[in-house]
Amino acid sequence: MNLEPPAGLRDFTPEIKILRKKIFNRIEKIFIRYGFDPIETSTVEYWDILKGKYGEEAENKLIWRFRLPYSDKEYSLRYDHTIPLARFYSRFQFPLPFKRYVIDKSYRYDNPQKGRYREFYQADFDIIGSREYTSDAEIINLVIEVFKEFKFNNYKIIINNREFLRYIFEKLLSINQDKIFKVYNIIDKLDKIGIENVEKELNSILDTDTSNKIINIIQLKDQELIDYLSKFNDLNELINYNNNIFDLLVDKKNVELSLSLVRGLDYYTGMIFEARVDEPKIGSLAGGGRYDNLIGKFSNRDIPAVGGSIGIERLIDAGIELKIFKMKKKTYTDLVVVYFNNTLKDAWSICNKLRSIGINCYIDIMSRDFNKQIKYAVDKDIRYLLIVGEKEIKNGFVLLQDRETKERINIKIEELDNIKNIIYK
Amino acid sequence: MNLEPPAGLRDFTPEIKILRKKIFNRIEKIFIRYGFDPIETSTVEYWDILKGKYGEEAENKLIWRFRLPYSDKEYSLRYDHTIPLARFYSRFQFPLPFKRYVIDKSYRYDNPQKGRYREFYQADFDIIGSREYTSDAEIINLVIEVFKEFKFNNYKIIINNREFLRYIFEKLLSINQDKIFKVYNIIDKLDKIGIENVEKELNSILDTDTSNKIINIIQLKDQELIDYLSKFNDLNELINYNNNIFDLLVDKKNVELSLSLVRGLDYYTGMIFEARVDEPKIGSLAGGGRYDNLIGKFSNRDIPAVGGSIGIERLIDAGIELKIFKMKKKTYTDLVVVYFNNTLKDAWSICNKLRSIGINCYIDIMSRDFNKQIKYAVDKDIRYLLIVGEKEIKNGFVLLQDRETKERINIKIEELDNIKNIIYK
Repeated sequence: MNLEPPAGLRDFTPEIKILRKKIFNRIEKIFIRYGFDPIETSTVEYWDILKGKYGEEAENKLIWRFRLPYSDKEYSLRYDHTIPLARFYSRFQFPLPFKRYVIDKSYRYDNPQKGRYREFYQADFDIIGSREYTSDAEIINLVIEVFKEFKFNNYKIIINNREFLRYIFEKLLSINQDKIFKVYNIIDKLDKIGIENVEKELNSILDTDTSNKIINIIQLKDQELIDYLSKFNDLNELINYNNNIFDLLVDKKNVELSLSLVRGLDYYTGMIFEARVDEPKIGSLAGGGRYDNLIGKFSNRDIPAVGGSIGIERLIDAGIELKIFKMKKKTYTDLVVVYFNNTLKDAWSICNKLRSIGINCYIDIMSRDFNKQIKYAVDKDIRYLLIVGEKEIKNGFVLLQDRETKERINIKIEELDNIKNIIYK
Repeated sequence: MNLEPPAGLRDFTPEIKILRKKIFNRIEKIFIRYGFDPIETSTVEYWDILKGKYGEEAENKLIWRFRLPYSDKEYSLRYDHTIPLARFYSRFQFPLPFKRYVIDKSYRYDNPQKGRYREFYQADFDIIGSREYTSDAEIINLVIEVFKEFKFNNYKIIINNREFLRYIFEKLLSINQDKIFKVYNIIDKLDKIGIENVEKELNSILDTDTSNKIINIIQLKDQELIDYLSKFNDLNELINYNNNIFDLLVDKKNVELSLSLVRGLDYYTGMIFEARVDEPKIGSLAGGGRYDNLIGKFSNRDIPAVGGSIGIERLIDAGIELKIFKMKKKTYTDLVVVYFNNTLKDAWSICNKLRSIGINCYIDIMSRDFNKQIKYAVDKDIRYLLIVGEKEIKNGFVLLQDRETKERINIKIEELDNIKNIIYK
C-alpha cells in the first residue's frame, strides 16, 4: 500500500513542522508589526466563485474542482487567497482601509517539482481601499522585512508599473493588441532565458527596429530608466508616484526598477513587483502589485487594492538549500523526568507541578528502566534531566542534570519553581 | 451572487480569528507542556486510505470524496486525524513512544448546525507505542488541563473501559452478538435521552430482568461502581489498571467512572472517555480512548495507541455562549502614528523605527487628515497615538497619547525605544 500522500501533497514530521512553525511565526510577526490583521476563508469554495477568474489553463488543468457522489453542487479548493479575499470583503464590507494577512494553504493540480506542490502555503497581505503610493510602499516594505528577518542577502526585488508598460510598448512603440501579450510574455522570461533568447524571440514576431528598442529599454535600470522615462511629459506624474514609493522603502539596497517585469496575472493595474534570489534557481519567492478592479467584482463597487504574496514553500526550500533554515529542534520538550519503580508517584506529581508552571516535560509512559528513560532524552536532544531517586526524595530534593554542561544541581522539592529560571534563563 | 462560503463552511473576520488564534495557542501550549510535538498530514488523502475505516454512513454520506475532471484517481479530504496518523506513522515508523498533536481542519459532509460544520478544527493528541495506564492518564490529564485553562467549571469527564462493557454485558448478562450493538447504542444515549427513555428502548429488545439489571448498572458511579465490579475476580486486574489511571489525574473533581459511556467508534479496545458540559447542550466537547489495533493497520504490525480529540468548534461555541470567550480585540495594532501633510516623511521614518523594535503600528495610507487618522484608532480600539507634529519634530520630539488614561508624554526622537517599555509594560 502506498503510504505517501498523493503526489504533490505532503506530510511534515515534528522536526520539519517545528521549523516551519517558527518560520511562519516570524513572518506573521512582521505582518502584525505593519498593522495587518488575520482573517480566514473557507478551504472549499463554490466553483461559481472561482470560475472565469484564473484563465483557461487553470480552469482546465489546475483547479481542484469536483462534485461529491451525493451532491449536485460543484465545489473547488481555494486556488489562491485573492479571489477568496474579494468574496470575503464583499460579504462583510468592513470600513476602509482593510489590511489583512493570511498564511494558509492553496491547492493547485500542478506538476509537482521542487518548490511547487499540489497543496502549498502562501502568505498573503493586502491593503483594500487605498489608491496612495504609501500603501504600495508598505506592501514592498513587508517583503523587504521578510528577507531581512531571515538574513537572505542574495535577494532582489524588481519593481515596475503596468502604466509604464502600457505607455512605452503600446503607445510609444505602437505594438498592436494581437502581439502585445506575446511581447509581454517574452519580456517576462528575461530572468529565466537571458537577453539573447529574449531578443531571438522578439525578432520572430517584431521588426528589428522595434525589437532592438525593446532590448535596450528592458535593460535600463533605476536612474538610467528614470532618465529615459523622464523624456516623456505624460509620464511625469507616474515617475513622481514611483519615486515616492522608493522614498518610503525601509531598505533600497536590493530593490531595482526595471521594465522587464510584467507578471502573468492580467488583473494588475499599477505598481507590480517580484522578489527573487540568485541561488537556488527556484523562481520568484514573492510577488504582487496593485489591482484596482478586482475586489469590487462581487459587489459592483470600485475598490482599489494592493497586495502581495510570499511563496512560503519556495522560501523554505530556498532557505534550506542556502543553509539559512536548519532543522535543529527534534522536539519542544525541554526536560525529562526520570524515575524508578518506587518513585513513580512522586515523579508524576513533580512532573505535574513542572507542567503547571509552564515547563515542557516528558515522563516515561513505557515502564522503562532508568537507562532507557535517559536514552529518550539523548535521542531527542533534550537538554535537561530531572532525576527522582528514592533517597533524594526522602531528603526532600531532586537532581537536575544539564546534559550539555554535565552540571548536576540539587533542587529542593519546595523550590521546583527555580527550575524554570535555570532552564529558560 | 451568494457571497457566503458553501453551507457548513466558514469565514473568520479579524475579531474572530484573533480570538481563535489565542485559544488555539493556549491549547497548543498545554500539548507541548505534556511532551507532545506537532506534525502535519496532507489535507487530501487517496480515497483508498480512508475506505473501509469509518463505517457505512461516512462512506455513503459524509466523506468529501471526489475525482477531478482531469484525473482518474479518487481523492478525499481528511475526515479526522486518526487514520491519517496511522498512515503517517506507518510511513515514517519513528521510535516509540511517539507523542504527537495536531490542530487542523477535518471535513465532513454533515448537516450543518450549531457546533457542527462541514469543515472544522480538531485538536488531536495521541501516544503511539505505550500499553501502560500512565499513557491513558496523560491523555485524560490533557483534557482536564484544557478545561482548567479556560476555567470551564461545568465540565464532566466520563471514563469507562471497553473491557468492563464486554465482561458485564456480553459475558455476565450474555447479551448475544445480534443485539449487543443495539444495546450499546441505547446506553450511549443516556446523556441525551434520559434514563426512562433508555429503559423504554431496552425493554423493546430485551427481557425485563436483563433490562432492569442494565438500568441499575449504568447508573452506578465511581466507588459504587468499583464496589460492584469488585465482585468479579476476573476484573481485578482491570480495576487496578483503572484505579492507577485515576491516581495520576491532575484533578479528579469532575471525573466520573461510569458504564454508561460506550462511544460510537468500534476501534476502541480499552479505556474510553468523553468530556461534556452541562450547558449549553452541544454534545461532547472531547473524547477518545485506547485503540490498540489501528495504528499498525497499514504496516501489519502490532502497535498500541491511546489518544483523544478536542472538538475545538464546539469548545469555542460553548465558551462563547458561557461568556468564557469574548471577542475583545479588533486588531493586533497597538499604536497609530498620526501625521500632517508636512511631516509625512518624518512620520514614516519614525513608524519604520517603531516597527523595527517590535511595536505593532498603523500609519495612514489614505491621505487622510488628522481627525480621520485618529478615528481609525478609535474605531479599532487602538490605545496609543503617536503624534508627529511639525513644531515638535523641529524640537526633536513627538507626542505619545494614551487614549485610555488621556495621558500625553513627550518622547525624544533619540529615545523612541522607550515607547516599547511604556506600551508593553
